[in-house]
Amino acid sequence: MRRVQKQSRIPIYAQLQEIITEMIDNEELQAHDSIPTEHEFCAFHDISRMTVRTAIMTLVNEGVLYREQGKGTFVAPKKPNYQLSGLKGLTAVMEELGYEVQTKIQSFAHVVCSKKIAQIIGIPVGQKAIRIKRLRFVDKEAYALETVWIDPEQYPNLTESTVEATSLYDIFRDTYGLIPAYTRQIVTPVRLNDVEKDFFALMDEPLGLMFERTTYTEDDKVIEYTKSVYRVDKHQFEMYLQI
Amino acid sequence: MRRVQKQSRIPIYAQLQEIITEMIDNEELQAHDSIPTEHEFCAFHDISRMTVRTAIMTLVNEGVLYREQGKGTFVAPKKPNYQLSGLKGLTAVMEELGYEVQTKIQSFAHVVCSKKIAQIIGIPVGQKAIRIKRLRFVDKEAYALETVWIDPEQYPNLTESTVEATSLYDIFRDTYGLIPAYTRQIVTPVRLNDVEKDFFALMDEPLGLMFERTTYTEDDKVIEYTKSVYRVDKHQFEMYLQI
Repeated sequence: MRRVQKQSRIPIYAQLQEIITEMIDNEELQAHDSIPTEHEFCAFHDISRMTVRTAIMTLVNEGVLYREQGKGTFVAPKKPNYQLSGLKGLTAVMEELGYEVQTKIQSFAHVVCSKKIAQIIGIPVGQKAIRIKRLRFVDKEAYALETVWIDPEQYPNLTESTVEATSLYDIFRDTYGLIPAYTRQIVTPVRLNDVEKDFFALMDEPLGLMFERTTYTEDDKVIEYTKSVYRVDKHQFEMYLQI
Repeated sequence: MRRVQKQSRIPIYAQLQEIITEMIDNEELQAHDSIPTEHEFCAFHDISRMTVRTAIMTLVNEGVLYREQGKGTFVAPKKPNYQLSGLKGLTAVMEELGYEVQTKIQSFAHVVCSKKIAQIIGIPVGQKAIRIKRLRFVDKEAYALETVWIDPEQYPNLTESTVEATSLYDIFRDTYGLIPAYTRQIVTPVRLNDVEKDFFALMDEPLGLMFERTTYTEDDKVIEYTKSVYRVDKHQFEMYLQI
């Protein structure tokens, strides 16, 4: 193990994170290997327990390491990729990877949305939108929290039981003839709040990724506006870009 | 202003964040408007100063609000988009948007890299790679910290002064005939460490986005592997995806 440099401007915990990551990248530590104990890190580098904990906690939050109660801290297996570059929905992407995807509708309501969202989905400001909150699970594990806003006039007779049974993209296409052609998606790092932490069953102060997605038809009609929060400790998000 | 719901499972600070964001989305608060004072938020919602500060600090870190010493807290102007979907480098993208881009080489060295990186850039494990650390500025403001790893045998005679003067992509293409055809890019949310915070001149506990990018030629030769950390308070990162 490389030693931390106490004279460096880079904080010790960040150096230790880098050292542990390097050991994994060098395959000195492999998936499911237990890492050295806090005490061993403290003694080897002559640093405080607090510093070691900060480094390890960050790597646990990032999904590089995982902890098992009473057993120790281990190297996490390589994360499967979630391809952001396609237009396929989560369901399709994950099912292709061999995972089972479940969706639970948390709420389906007609609500007044903000002016910003009204303008995006093309309804008059102050008029109600359909807002669908969905919990997404991959192999029974909480994966994403989604809120979808759509124009009620574009989707007459849409009910909670319909969206419970079928993929939203399938409904847009098959029932309403709206075929997704392109999306704009803004990606932002977020701190997960307590509700999100509970949902993902995460501890400490995990980060997540928020995606704000607007989906359009070929003739630039907005199909949906969606805000999603994804955990990042179990999957990685990859973009494949071609000239 | 909508009131926070004290019975809700959603933490008060998160509700207040949402309320402030809504006021901006509804244009009740516009760019450069000053927001209500901490005291006003406390009195209106009957909540603690600590809660108000947490909400405001988060929005400042996200670049939704900005603070001016002794003057107050204001609504930030809309962030310009950085398109992630193209293969253009930062320089090209930003210059098209009318910004001036500067690059400062922080270090240029031949170093032994991790096994993971050696395998990505295709050098034998234990052999040295060229590692280039670059600081990127947009309109004189710190914007990104980049570390590039490349195979020295692929880039004979490459020197620090060359990379100081010219865009890396131009060098790869014009001097070495390596034309980028596609990239794979992994996006991860990160907490900025003290060195990064200093560089970006940020306070509190800001988040950033890390991109790990591998660039390939048409015949799948790796041109470069780059790890970059971007601030997210001044620009937003958008992906445009087409079927």
